[in-house]
Amino acid sequence: MLEQLKKDVLEANLQLPKHGLVTFTWGNVSGIDREAGLFVIKPSGVPYDQLTLEDLVVLDLDGNKVEGKLNPSSDTPTHLALYKAFPQIGGIVHTHSPWATSFAQAGRPIPALGTTHADYFYGWIPCTREMTAAEIENQYELETGKVIVETFKELQLDPMQIPSVLVRNHAPFCWGKDADNAVHNAVVLEEVAKIAFHTYVLNPAVGPMNQVLLDKHFLRKHGLNAYYGQK
Amino acid sequence: MLEQLKKDVLEANLQLPKHGLVTFTWGNVSGIDREAGLFVIKPSGVPYDQLTLEDLVVLDLDGNKVEGKLNPSSDTPTHLALYKAFPQIGGIVHTHSPWATSFAQAGRPIPALGTTHADYFYGWIPCTREMTAAEIENQYELETGKVIVETFKELQLDPMQIPSVLVRNHAPFCWGKDADNAVHNAVVLEEVAKIAFHTYVLNPAVGPMNQVLLDKHFLRKHGLNAYYGQK
Amino acid sequence: MLEQLKKDVLEANLQLPKHGLVTFTWGNVSGIDREAGLFVIKPSGVPYDQLTLEDLVVLDLDGNKVEGKLNPSSDTPTHLALYKAFPQIGGIVHTHSPWATSFAQAGRPIPALGTTHADYFYGWIPCTREMTAAEIENQYELETGKVIVETFKELQLDPMQIPSVLVRNHAPFCWGKDADNAVHNAVVLEEVAKIAFHTYVLNPAVGPMNQVLLDKHFLRKHGLNAYYGQK
Amino acid sequence: MLEQLKKDVLEANLQLPKHGLVTFTWGNVSGIDREAGLFVIKPSGVPYDQLTLEDLVVLDLDGNKVEGKLNPSSDTPTHLALYKAFPQIGGIVHTHSPWATSFAQAGRPIPALGTTHADYFYGWIPCTREMTAAEIENQYELETGKVIVETFKELQLDPMQIPSVLVRNHAPFCWGKDADNAVHNAVVLEEVAKIAFHTYVLNPAVGPMNQVLLDKHFLRKHGLNAYYGQK
Repeated sequence: MLEQLKKDVLEANLQLPKHGLVTFTWGNVSGIDREAGLFVIKPSGVPYDQLTLEDLVVLDLDGNKVEGKLNPSSDTPTHLALYKAFPQIGGIVHTHSPWATSFAQAGRPIPALGTTHADYFYGWIPCTREMTAAEIENQYELETGKVIVETFKELQLDPMQIPSVLVRNHAPFCWGKDADNAVHNAVVLEEVAKIAFHTYVLNPAVGPMNQVLLDKHFLRKHGLNAYYGQK
Repeated sequence: MLEQLKKDVLEANLQLPKHGLVTFTWGNVSGIDREAGLFVIKPSGVPYDQLTLEDLVVLDLDGNKVEGKLNPSSDTPTHLALYKAFPQIGGIVHTHSPWATSFAQAGRPIPALGTTHADYFYGWIPCTREMTAAEIENQYELETGKVIVETFKELQLDPMQIPSVLVRNHAPFCWGKDADNAVHNAVVLEEVAKIAFHTYVLNPAVGPMNQVLLDKHFLRKHGLNAYYGQK
Repeated sequence: MLEQLKKDVLEANLQLPKHGLVTFTWGNVSGIDREAGLFVIKPSGVPYDQLTLEDLVVLDLDGNKVEGKLNPSSDTPTHLALYKAFPQIGGIVHTHSPWATSFAQAGRPIPALGTTHADYFYGWIPCTREMTAAEIENQYELETGKVIVETFKELQLDPMQIPSVLVRNHAPFCWGKDADNAVHNAVVLEEVAKIAFHTYVLNPAVGPMNQVLLDKHFLRKHGLNAYYGQK
Repeated sequence: MLEQLKKDVLEANLQLPKHGLVTFTWGNVSGIDREAGLFVIKPSGVPYDQLTLEDLVVLDLDGNKVEGKLNPSSDTPTHLALYKAFPQIGGIVHTHSPWATSFAQAGRPIPALGTTHADYFYGWIPCTREMTAAEIENQYELETGKVIVETFKELQLDPMQIPSVLVRNHAPFCWGKDADNAVHNAVVLEEVAKIAFHTYVLNPAVGPMNQVLLDKHFLRKHGLNAYYGQK
């Protein structure tokens, strides 16, 4: 069942330690088959160097386990909330990558300070509000997803143009057209956060880059008039 | 004698360079067999790439060497003091891992700033007071252990909920249910210290995270109602 | 056609990931044959671990493709502008190496703060002005090259003595006598930027180094009286 | 001639890239045979991955080349000045290791802030004064050595107790009982500088550690009453 998707999700999970985004088991990737209405996710707490295809868990969009012996990632309800709210996304990744997590802990969104950011994110990468006690104490992981969705709605952000979020006092979630692309965006987010950190130290008063330059770089890689790459 | 424990302690020591926690011989791990009343510790000054099972030193809880040709780690009396005061711990590790050591040198404890911290430490990671001249000049390594114990008593901390300490102007000690778990916590401490450092630079006024969120994350991984992982 | 130059350009491109200067495809190297009036450049968006000799693109100095099936780097017009304006250079490299990019985003040039800098750069490494909307919206990559050239003219800098520039809100371009030398300078720039960053944090009021020391170090490695190395 | 010394000096040079202390050829190690009155040093500008025993250069204490086809390191007169002034040292290393170089560029000596420092350096690691134009323009490398010696005399430092110096606007020199020990100290200096940097950011007002603790740590590893290690 969903053999290619499972292979893709396994490979995307294994990219996390290769790119230095995770310590121990601090991360998880999922991928969805929209037609089948099923998604595949890493099991909870399994080390990456032991992870096999058989360990992956398949769930339906009500969160019911359809296949797999292990418990799915504890963050599964967050993934599910994002798949439901953002119909264009095909993969999701959560890590505690240290530079992005530093911004999340500081409660600071990351503005577009340069073209490295602009090539992937069409503006600010938002940081969510603090969650309420009720949200935390009840369905915490589901509510985490809801707060992310709320943030994108309030700021009128397109999740395909800003494929990452910083969850306050927690860490980033990223997504993309599929699991591999989600991990790609997670690598970019970490690099962008690192460069933004050092930019702020060198120039604490720095503001967002010129909007025209932001448009130029985002649109030369995305959309109908893109001319970067081989297509 | 204690063959499995020795293997575990050797393996835990070898994890230190693999995780980038030590330069040269700047670290040591021990593990205890509570029933036998004996603990196994790294010898002093032996490089990790030359360390063998035969090099490990076995001591009793009076600090007498029971087996081994080499001198035990010079920090042995600190380990012994912690084993005596904290009866639930099964392994101890000392390193000079650079991020945690920076906080120790700065004399700053590390508050819970986010869920990465909260998943392992149920609140502040304390920094000990300065030691007196008499403590340093007499039984320095034993007194180091005593100051750690004093810190946990005065702050009413449970060593199983806060499995690390920053020794002022020195470096961290970490512990856990066994030697492997102690090293695991040392890796987490270093990561948490690194992220806390960058959080402070981004937001110097940042305070501890919401207590409800701290409870949620610590308790979803520890205690009776834990639901992270496969058990 | 240009077989040796292609090999050199391929090898120089492959040096970028080896030296940790690039994430994904964020960089490109070119090399020129001045007699033939042709230059060789990396294709756009091709991962380094898949890059072959056949993928390289050969262009003339009007920017016409002379050989190659793939699209050349989207930054090709910038390379071309630099080759035309700086007749002594034989290779060019563009990366988003994070330390240099942080200075570019902060809009700060890098002064000569020590001999590491002075061994390669005979004074300040400049940062370009912001580009105008018209420059960005029309021939952006060509205009990027023109702004670099303008910067060197206005500051009366010799591109062979200052073989790098920080493009504002973007990232560095470096060059040299050939493709390999350009990448060498890109590695040095990144190291110099890293050390300059930490120097500023330790001493925010630090000014440029003594001019006599700058002269000494630059001239013991460059020019007629150089005595570093084996020639 | 001096076969064992050459092997030791070669091996010590090769340790520099292994420990991440050098970029390209930015470093050199020498070792001396006091009885023979000869020292062995790396040739100038030769990459570490091509360095062989035959490349090493042997010189006498007047700086005359006794063996070797290549030019010795351009820093040879600095090494020679230190060997003459510090009769107990057997090996010297110069690098541009980035953390130590940042302090040198900032013109800041490194105080003993913790036991990592105290285990190897018995107090402040000094930073030399700026060199005069005459010193730089005439025998620059020899004068560099003289300024280091002057610094140790004026501050009444014992080079065996403080085996490193930061040369202002330049980079560190380190030494030890032999070439291997000099490189060991260079590794420690870099680690100590890194931790000191982060300590200062966390606590800008931090002062030197307690002298009693400094004594304890230095003397448990050095001198007659040392008890660290296996001797």
